[in-house]
Amino acid sequence: MSTDVFSNISPLDHRYLMSNPKLHSKMAQYLSEGAYVKYELLVESALTRVLSRRGLCPSDVADEVERACNEITAEEVYAEEQITRHNIRALVNCIQRRVSESARPYVHFTATSVDIMDTANALRYRDFTRDVIMPEGLALLQTLIDLARREKRTVQMGRTHGQHAVPITFGFAVAEYIARLGNRLAEIERTANNLRGKMAGAVGAYNASSIFFEDAETFEREVLGELGLLPAEYATQIVMPEYVTDYVHAVVSGLGVLANLADDVRHLQRSEIGELAERFEKGQVGSSTMPHKRNPWNFEHVKSLWKTFMPRMMTVYMDQLSEHQRDLTNSASGRFVTEILAGFVLAMHRLQSVVSKLVVDTARMSANFEASKDNVIAEPLYILLAASGHPDAHEAVRRLSVEASSKQMTVRELVDQKPEFAEFLAGLSEKQKEYLSRPETYIGRSVQKTEVICEIWQKFVDERTCR
Amino acid sequence: MSTDVFSNISPLDHRYLMSNPKLHSKMAQYLSEGAYVKYELLVESALTRVLSRRGLCPSDVADEVERACNEITAEEVYAEEQITRHNIRALVNCIQRRVSESARPYVHFTATSVDIMDTANALRYRDFTRDVIMPEGLALLQTLIDLARREKRTVQMGRTHGQHAVPITFGFAVAEYIARLGNRLAEIERTANNLRGKMAGAVGAYNASSIFFEDAETFEREVLGELGLLPAEYATQIVMPEYVTDYVHAVVSGLGVLANLADDVRHLQRSEIGELAERFEKGQVGSSTMPHKRNPWNFEHVKSLWKTFMPRMMTVYMDQLSEHQRDLTNSASGRFVTEILAGFVLAMHRLQSVVSKLVVDTARMSANFEASKDNVIAEPLYILLAASGHPDAHEAVRRLSVEASSKQMTVRELVDQKPEFAEFLAGLSEKQKEYLSRPETYIGRSVQKTEVICEIWQKFVDERTCR
Amino acid sequence: MSTDVFSNISPLDHRYLMSNPKLHSKMAQYLSEGAYVKYELLVESALTRVLSRRGLCPSDVADEVERACNEITAEEVYAEEQITRHNIRALVNCIQRRVSESARPYVHFTATSVDIMDTANALRYRDFTRDVIMPEGLALLQTLIDLARREKRTVQMGRTHGQHAVPITFGFAVAEYIARLGNRLAEIERTANNLRGKMAGAVGAYNASSIFFEDAETFEREVLGELGLLPAEYATQIVMPEYVTDYVHAVVSGLGVLANLADDVRHLQRSEIGELAERFEKGQVGSSTMPHKRNPWNFEHVKSLWKTFMPRMMTVYMDQLSEHQRDLTNSASGRFVTEILAGFVLAMHRLQSVVSKLVVDTARMSANFEASKDNVIAEPLYILLAASGHPDAHEAVRRLSVEASSKQMTVRELVDQKPEFAEFLAGLSEKQKEYLSRPETYIGRSVQKTEVICEIWQKFVDERTCR
Amino acid sequence: MSTDVFSNISPLDHRYLMSNPKLHSKMAQYLSEGAYVKYELLVESALTRVLSRRGLCPSDVADEVERACNEITAEEVYAEEQITRHNIRALVNCIQRRVSESARPYVHFTATSVDIMDTANALRYRDFTRDVIMPEGLALLQTLIDLARREKRTVQMGRTHGQHAVPITFGFAVAEYIARLGNRLAEIERTANNLRGKMAGAVGAYNASSIFFEDAETFEREVLGELGLLPAEYATQIVMPEYVTDYVHAVVSGLGVLANLADDVRHLQRSEIGELAERFEKGQVGSSTMPHKRNPWNFEHVKSLWKTFMPRMMTVYMDQLSEHQRDLTNSASGRFVTEILAGFVLAMHRLQSVVSKLVVDTARMSANFEASKDNVIAEPLYILLAASGHPDAHEAVRRLSVEASSKQMTVRELVDQKPEFAEFLAGLSEKQKEYLSRPETYIGRSVQKTEVICEIWQKFVDERTCR
Repeated sequence: MSTDVFSNISPLDHRYLMSNPKLHSKMAQYLSEGAYVKYELLVESALTRVLSRRGLCPSDVADEVERACNEITAEEVYAEEQITRHNIRALVNCIQRRVSESARPYVHFTATSVDIMDTANALRYRDFTRDVIMPEGLALLQTLIDLARREKRTVQMGRTHGQHAVPITFGFAVAEYIARLGNRLAEIERTANNLRGKMAGAVGAYNASSIFFEDAETFEREVLGELGLLPAEYATQIVMPEYVTDYVHAVVSGLGVLANLADDVRHLQRSEIGELAERFEKGQVGSSTMPHKRNPWNFEHVKSLWKTFMPRMMTVYMDQLSEHQRDLTNSASGRFVTEILAGFVLAMHRLQSVVSKLVVDTARMSANFEASKDNVIAEPLYILLAASGHPDAHEAVRRLSVEASSKQMTVRELVDQKPEFAEFLAGLSEKQKEYLSRPETYIGRSVQKTEVICEIWQKFVDERTCR
Repeated sequence: MSTDVFSNISPLDHRYLMSNPKLHSKMAQYLSEGAYVKYELLVESALTRVLSRRGLCPSDVADEVERACNEITAEEVYAEEQITRHNIRALVNCIQRRVSESARPYVHFTATSVDIMDTANALRYRDFTRDVIMPEGLALLQTLIDLARREKRTVQMGRTHGQHAVPITFGFAVAEYIARLGNRLAEIERTANNLRGKMAGAVGAYNASSIFFEDAETFEREVLGELGLLPAEYATQIVMPEYVTDYVHAVVSGLGVLANLADDVRHLQRSEIGELAERFEKGQVGSSTMPHKRNPWNFEHVKSLWKTFMPRMMTVYMDQLSEHQRDLTNSASGRFVTEILAGFVLAMHRLQSVVSKLVVDTARMSANFEASKDNVIAEPLYILLAASGHPDAHEAVRRLSVEASSKQMTVRELVDQKPEFAEFLAGLSEKQKEYLSRPETYIGRSVQKTEVICEIWQKFVDERTCR
Repeated sequence: MSTDVFSNISPLDHRYLMSNPKLHSKMAQYLSEGAYVKYELLVESALTRVLSRRGLCPSDVADEVERACNEITAEEVYAEEQITRHNIRALVNCIQRRVSESARPYVHFTATSVDIMDTANALRYRDFTRDVIMPEGLALLQTLIDLARREKRTVQMGRTHGQHAVPITFGFAVAEYIARLGNRLAEIERTANNLRGKMAGAVGAYNASSIFFEDAETFEREVLGELGLLPAEYATQIVMPEYVTDYVHAVVSGLGVLANLADDVRHLQRSEIGELAERFEKGQVGSSTMPHKRNPWNFEHVKSLWKTFMPRMMTVYMDQLSEHQRDLTNSASGRFVTEILAGFVLAMHRLQSVVSKLVVDTARMSANFEASKDNVIAEPLYILLAASGHPDAHEAVRRLSVEASSKQMTVRELVDQKPEFAEFLAGLSEKQKEYLSRPETYIGRSVQKTEVICEIWQKFVDERTCR
Repeated sequence: MSTDVFSNISPLDHRYLMSNPKLHSKMAQYLSEGAYVKYELLVESALTRVLSRRGLCPSDVADEVERACNEITAEEVYAEEQITRHNIRALVNCIQRRVSESARPYVHFTATSVDIMDTANALRYRDFTRDVIMPEGLALLQTLIDLARREKRTVQMGRTHGQHAVPITFGFAVAEYIARLGNRLAEIERTANNLRGKMAGAVGAYNASSIFFEDAETFEREVLGELGLLPAEYATQIVMPEYVTDYVHAVVSGLGVLANLADDVRHLQRSEIGELAERFEKGQVGSSTMPHKRNPWNFEHVKSLWKTFMPRMMTVYMDQLSEHQRDLTNSASGRFVTEILAGFVLAMHRLQSVVSKLVVDTARMSANFEASKDNVIAEPLYILLAASGHPDAHEAVRRLSVEASSKQMTVRELVDQKPEFAEFLAGLSEKQKEYLSRPETYIGRSVQKTEVICEIWQKFVDERTCR
């Protein structure tokens, strides 16, 4: 069934995905309705195969079913659903129609709809993670690692509360996102690999399958094993929801890391800060009325995606509650998990593209640092005074700061005028004095920490990309 | 640009709307991207018309622009956006390309992108409310009114905490949803009619338009007046967000009312309660493995829509925050408001359809009432005892209940055995005694209240449907 | 019952309120448990008064009950609740214990617990709004009006996407928050005055009261009228929840306005921007380790309060759903509404205090403007070119901007070098030329709009403060 | 500082915790402000100890500081904060005041406030998990295990969509919550043990500490090692937030499991179902006006706690975002994490108490089963027909169900009347025939699955309680 994309109501497909048809079609292989049907057919096929292996039906029945499952399209199933008003009954009817009469009884045999649907979802989320999320995530991680390594010695003013604090390097600032994104990707991978299927029937007690198999749990394990999945520890009609809840949490919290990165870059692009810029394409327009504008719109877009998808975690938490052996109130809401996954990939893809072209204006970075470097020596000054035995170093330096500010002098200038500090400063080593005279050396372990973080996550990337 | 609907990632269009192509296409006229572009063109056209009326450009320029705006398609604009990477610049380019060289400068003249977009959104949300939400809402309201009137005397056990409490009528129970849905529709209508546009330029200060008009605020008022809108009391680059926030709140809280209705009906369909049922179509399948099942899936679906869309209000609240004269972090997130609107209509439409076919099993309703009617006289008994001067009526009746329960007697039977109550009960009127002997008369003002509520909201419906 | 405040688990009281004992105690008169009990007693008292007026009991019963209600303390009720395990039964017992035996039956007569509790909540929220929210809100509004008026001509660079856009005045920027906060206060007032009570009994059908009164609805109206309240249009055991939902929405969206204001001020305090500063008290410490730091922590605090309380609106939306004539799952959650109200007042109070002491660094404001004023003429230049008949003004100016940037020239300098623009610029009026030569005049209607907004909301303040 | 509990605004302490003073005081040892200060002092003490071990200061300095830290109270720190307006500076001042002049410089040496606060939080959340969450969780788990084992053979109707489906046992239904709660407790334990501290200074780059130690990372590791913690992989001024995010997610999703259990029990207590009941204490009142009511209010309370605390996860997700090396907008919001933890424990504690006294009405359970047992054979019938070669078994049985319903017969009766089924049923084994004649045997693997789940989680409990 084809449709005019501009008559879609959801902006997701027409606005955010179709602008990148390659990415869209890659994701659609797992997240679209067509893909869902395809995955459900994989589960039906695995089921019949194990039935045949256990001698419940001849092996050509399994072959017939597999052939049918390879041929059926979503369109066909949807047409049938117009009659049955039940999506899995429609699917089963489509398979049965394509197989011989003797094969028909073994289609979907002993299974309940959700055995097929929950298992198909576990399978496609897992595959999507392996085939789309991880490659996109690793590409972004690599881009960040390359950037951090390149800029590991570029001195930048550290900022807390939006105020100049003490120096770091820009590479060290980037390393934050390597560690945090890496940590989230590891968690996404872990939780995706822990997604579970089921083949436990209408209320999870193997009522139907145990008619035929003493070891119904083993039978379940075999069917799921065909697909590389483990059974849920417990299922009612549905797989216990915490496997999916943990997985979506990992994704949503991953999106939070991206949003934070986007915010940081956005603010560093402020006119007054100007340490970073998005490279604009030729012909690209920044504003319809202000031709001079170059807006950080890609980073704003990533933040906006977070605002769009993060609150949907509440839907996932609400879907943890299902009455008794199951109510169906998670039926529509559960389907929208795919949108969260797509939103996360969209954000990573966008970031990878703009971060790889990020322009670092080292001149501005340096100028911003210079503007308050004489004041930021307050911290090492206070600490060195304290270490030299000054009894009230913090308060003394706080007063110096206030005085410096009111006299429009730097702390550095003022401290040199005050004889009461001389005795404490006299005993400092050359290196320690340098912190006060050349604050740009007061970057702590920025370089080494950046290197360590890059090494850890480079290994993570390498292990997954077989370089 | 056409697309295979089964490759969509969002389930909204392919799963929940395309099953009802008529409703989908009705909604798409306001909520789709095609509709958005159409509405933006209306705003551009209104702008040039007022420019011409004020003599800034000849009137045939306005005619030319209007003609162009009538012809342009979303497809054309999107193709241009591939180059400009800016949606409104693309739109403007498309208009300019279709008009004479002398007309071109007056296209989008003095406007900023958001003047067009925010105004177009206010316009289409308002139209959508008037043309889709209200008709759907009124139809559901009418269905509920008809049901309440029909069942206003059908005695039903009132339930609190899921426990039998004191009697009402089923019509009275339905009246709850008439009052609450009616109240929400009135609020949706009010807030929709309070949506505002703007024509105040890049930072809201009329910088560009005030070059040409001393009375730039009046100019704005004229342009928006063409579209039947009022200007925002204040705008930065964007309309102050609270108009939309209030509107979406009204819709989301309306969805909450529908979800509560759905829950109530759902539970009344429990096997053990069985007071209501969804009428099944011939051939309809309830379960893929349990052929006897008839599930309340439409009501479950409505609850599921609420779980899907309600948390998205948090996105709307987050979009209230925009830095200084605007950041763009509401760009993607703001577009998804359309989905919430669609979800609400979807839920009302579904409910209207199933409530109109709701089967009331009065026999079961009556049987459920009978099962504990002798116990529910505890309330009138305690009150009548108190009114007759019993000093500790509540405690006395509470003990009676405990004793009745342990003796497997009814409260009614037990009280008659206890001489200590005789004196207090002696003075009761016939009507009062009837409450104790025929608890089904103890329905208070259920009938009258139902009638009043129905009358109020029938008037509301009638005023809006010109009957 | 007294307690060590440092053993409280909730940070709300000990951390955020007790630092301001005066404000805390003012709020506690409405929001504490003690206040809740006091308000419940007001409702019980009003009930008996109307019973007596209608002749159901002698008037000295009403006097006795009123006296008792004035004396009872929360402590007493809680002690009794240890036995009854039911808060309103405990309250009723406490009243009954203090009145004569003949008065006892008329205490709480025909009422159900929630008649008392929901009515008490409507009453105290309404009073809290009138006595605390509005005064605090008006004080903040007045502070903003004073600031806007003072700074209405102070030129500031308008910023979109964090980028310099076109000029406004600082007063105009402040006017945004006058309009938005004013709008929210009006909505809070409207919804608070629309809060409703009930006296409709256990399932809302007046079962008990209609034993004694034919016109049970009028009886309800009289009891609530004693308290200045209207009855809910419909009630089950509980008042239909949308009255409270709308009220809390108004408050939560009001908190969003405060958070946005806080963000704006925060960012204008960034080291590189420095247009605003919080005035520090003598002795105040900015950082435990960086003695020079002066952090915008009050504004950060307001943002943090928004993050704390905004998501709780979801609880309110969930509490819209209550099964049949009521389930009790809103019992605990509904009590936390008081925290949202307290959080909102806390944020307003904090803002009022710091905004009134806000330091505007006009030198920095001016310097920031100067830094890009030559580029921001791009907008008026493009518009004037277009108005003078340039066929492709936007694109021409966009190219100028790119060229200016690459040549490190200003747009202004570059345009003067380009003969192709001369003919279009020749016909400009003096005023129009001034926009290009003195961009600080290109502030549109900033001053006038600021004045209009201030006037509107000054009137709102004045009407409510009887000046 | 003592306070009247009834003037508290937060209902958490006065309403939900003080009713259980023992539990409250146990939790307050970790979650109160007093506890927070105590934990911060532990961190300050550990810091000085490592400084002395590394020779930066004499060992009696560490002794002095430790002594001071053992003595200081929250009250003292709060009094000092009135002056400094900075909580950690106040803490440091308090310590310094109690130690000799020569020791003062080494207090808080090289640390930033958040080094102390984030580390203290990691520490107390971890301890709280070990000392309160886990014991409470294990007690509830044990109660559920005992119940499941006792009821493992009690046949209960399985319910999907609130409709009778196919049979299970009540023990099997309970096993759901053993598996899910167990799974959550394991996740809570895992994430609590992964909470991290930091001692990396104002921007996370060890600027201050690396003045004195080449190996500042090792120094950090040593200080945290004193407390049994690991350092964060990366820190800005704050520990990267995902450790806490994961922990709170585990808790919030654990609360979801409890809410689901509460819902299930609540519905099984409905008057019409009546399979379970809360045991009421003598004198306990169910309703202020309906003396006969026995409401499932404890289970409703647990659901209400979930509605209160679950949405707060959004605050935690928002707190993932902190600008650059840190903004302070997580300062207030982060403190409220303690309330979520308290809410979770409160829910577990309440559930443990009521589940341990849960009354199972096996007669009603059996009666409910009997009521539709003849219809639920539809599933085994369809499957056995299919296995016997019936080509269209599902459709045939669906039609049987419809016919049975319209003829008010059971499926069982009807199938025996239809000769067309005879041939397929002829070949069934005795066991298979029994499913149709005695549907109560059609419980699948309910018993065995219950046993397996109980065994797994009994082991989990035993390992943690050293039995």
